[in-house]
Amino acid sequence: MTKEGILLVLSGPSGAGKGTICQELLRRYPELNYSISATTRAARVGEKHGVNYWFVSREEFENMIKNDELLEWAEVYGNFYGTPCRHVKDLLQNGKDVVLEIDAQGATQIKKRFPQGVFIYIAPPSLDELANRIHKRGTDSLDVIKKRLSCVNNELTYVHNYNYIVVNDEVQEATNKVLSIITAEKCQVVRNDNIVEEILTNFNK
Amino acid sequence: MTKEGILLVLSGPSGAGKGTICQELLRRYPELNYSISATTRAARVGEKHGVNYWFVSREEFENMIKNDELLEWAEVYGNFYGTPCRHVKDLLQNGKDVVLEIDAQGATQIKKRFPQGVFIYIAPPSLDELANRIHKRGTDSLDVIKKRLSCVNNELTYVHNYNYIVVNDEVQEATNKVLSIITAEKCQVVRNDNIVEEILTNFNK
Repeated sequence: MTKEGILLVLSGPSGAGKGTICQELLRRYPELNYSISATTRAARVGEKHGVNYWFVSREEFENMIKNDELLEWAEVYGNFYGTPCRHVKDLLQNGKDVVLEIDAQGATQIKKRFPQGVFIYIAPPSLDELANRIHKRGTDSLDVIKKRLSCVNNELTYVHNYNYIVVNDEVQEATNKVLSIITAEKCQVVRNDNIVEEILTNFNK
Repeated sequence: MTKEGILLVLSGPSGAGKGTICQELLRRYPELNYSISATTRAARVGEKHGVNYWFVSREEFENMIKNDELLEWAEVYGNFYGTPCRHVKDLLQNGKDVVLEIDAQGATQIKKRFPQGVFIYIAPPSLDELANRIHKRGTDSLDVIKKRLSCVNNELTYVHNYNYIVVNDEVQEATNKVLSIITAEKCQVVRNDNIVEEILTNFNK
């Protein structure tokens, strides 16, 4: 029997750097599979359909909800975001690891369906630094930035739903920590019934 | 308040290689503190009092038991082994990490007093390999080796008491895994109440 893959959920307030860490993870651990979310928001400059997101219409999204094709979904800042189910489940069952990059609301829904998932909260080092990063990105209007920051405090209260917290002071260092978390999780006794059985069987021969 | 250090408990059947992994850990992570056990067994060639073990008499050991100076103790193959309490507690309270290398009985006792400890089971890849290693060490008589191997099966049934299992196919690889486990544990939300509080306080200013 194939050992089930690990579902890695990266979450945290907008601007904490989960996107950058996710890219670094995929570069340094290419066997990891990125779960592409569906969204009704407009693509930012450089973003591609089927790479960064599945960009869909509101009607298409509502159909996916109706047909129970989403692992989680949420409305954030007036747009829908969600995780198509089937692909993630297939990968995990075939022993592949999958990373999801989603907000705290989505993570809470995922946790109900996948309690064995590994939930990592990416935290910004400070509010000043967070505001800085969102400004630098320059993709959001001032109104949206204000909206984002006012939601941050609320987001942070979700931290106790997560298994791990990684403060993103420096991207490489934070990525090292996430890679260590993956390695450690793969060593957990509860994920290694097969190895334990195998050793015990060998000893009982 | 200083964040409490991590108590790392390395355990597993005799000959699985926990001693070698422990030495590698201390070389690659020198801030780690090795908790020296007390024992009534005779020193092997090259072993030093106060470095590998505190070699004590049976009477001295029995006094330590009587005065509740041991975190755990056990009689194994006719000898007493135990962990002196005070030093370990002082180190942990001062935020230092400590590694203990003990058998499954000792680990079970430690777990009752330190459920927040990190319990790692070092497993041999196979019974043949295990027998090989014990023979190669050449420090035990044939009788003792037979005794050790007959206890292995019993030891392995303890594996479900541990948080992690690391199969020691190759020492460097196994040591990497233990180092990753330490890094991951330090990121656990339950061990980071201070960081969470700090971030939330900053956001609420």
